[in-house]
Amino acid sequence: MRVAVVGGTGDFGLALAQRLAQAGVEVVIGSRDAERARAKAAEVSAAAGAANEDAVRDVDLVVLATKADAALQTAASLVDALDETPVLSVASELRFTKHGVLPTEDARSIAERMQELLRGPVTAGLHSLAAASLAHGAAEGDALVCGDDEQAKQLALELAGHVVTGRALDAGPLASARALEGMTAVIVNLNKRYKGHAGVHVTGL
Amino acid sequence: MRVAVVGGTGDFGLALAQRLAQAGVEVVIGSRDAERARAKAAEVSAAAGAANEDAVRDVDLVVLATKADAALQTAASLVDALDETPVLSVASELRFTKHGVLPTEDARSIAERMQELLRGPVTAGLHSLAAASLAHGAAEGDALVCGDDEQAKQLALELAGHVVTGRALDAGPLASARALEGMTAVIVNLNKRYKGHAGVHVTGL
Repeated sequence: MRVAVVGGTGDFGLALAQRLAQAGVEVVIGSRDAERARAKAAEVSAAAGAANEDAVRDVDLVVLATKADAALQTAASLVDALDETPVLSVASELRFTKHGVLPTEDARSIAERMQELLRGPVTAGLHSLAAASLAHGAAEGDALVCGDDEQAKQLALELAGHVVTGRALDAGPLASARALEGMTAVIVNLNKRYKGHAGVHVTGL
Repeated sequence: MRVAVVGGTGDFGLALAQRLAQAGVEVVIGSRDAERARAKAAEVSAAAGAANEDAVRDVDLVVLATKADAALQTAASLVDALDETPVLSVASELRFTKHGVLPTEDARSIAERMQELLRGPVTAGLHSLAAASLAHGAAEGDALVCGDDEQAKQLALELAGHVVTGRALDAGPLASARALEGMTAVIVNLNKRYKGHAGVHVTGL
């Protein structure tokens, strides 16, 4: 499997690219700055680094791992480069307030809005993982992945299986992203409250 | 702790009341039908059974455990009887489609809408538990509870601690209910896909 990580020089993107490279996946790090992408690729032993629009060509799956507030704009800027390539959206919108971290007020997920922009199938997942959880190998717990396109979802599940100690689980249609993205706010609140690095393990399956 | 379970003769409400009674909590089963509430209370060794509006008087916490589509209407009908008594909302709105179970299209949670109706503090939790998971004692995994009122949330956490094998965890402000209610759809999808009774265990805390 050949995977591009757009936003692959950011905290989460880089940790993910490193973990995938360690697991033997052929990873291309994408960044707005090609030079920086190449330097980071060398640093984490990824296959290559390139400008985002070049990184996404000729790969099986593209992980869109920019910061959440740039996710939709980045997707829009890559419509032609991505064409029909499957995308995995990992972003969650959070609102930081003095009462804690709140999920977005938008009823639709980033992933569903991304699907309206792109020609290829969008899947969503890995929302419960943080860069820090990937720093020392696979993250503890399971990874939940959702999507409406079965073939794209299988690719995303295969990728997810490389980054957690537990299972990559099919959480249903793309609309499940509303809950999965929202759980990031819950996890941030749990981390603050209990001073930990929370992940999710699904019991009873 | 004295707890009323409104909708306590339904599948989930009754399983919850039974589990709480087993754990030594003083439980009053509420139902629209007082006779039925009394019969079910005897059946599961609850302290008492009564019509909903009587069941909620002089208790520390009220669990609103009707079916999701009746939750807000039931809350509205009990405004005066509840007065300022803390409420725990366990309902999740689901949309069953041929593509799987989808979360609601409403951006706000049932719990947040319930808070606008009631005078007392509303908390939300136990969404990842099913009646079937409570049938043989405490449910596997952790229980997540959220709310804006700290005192009410502590009561809800105490109750939640009695119904799971794991921990009762503080998931932050009431707005977290958007994610927690949405996770019910994810859990139903996981149960269908993997033929199990999924629950959530939070790792890394």
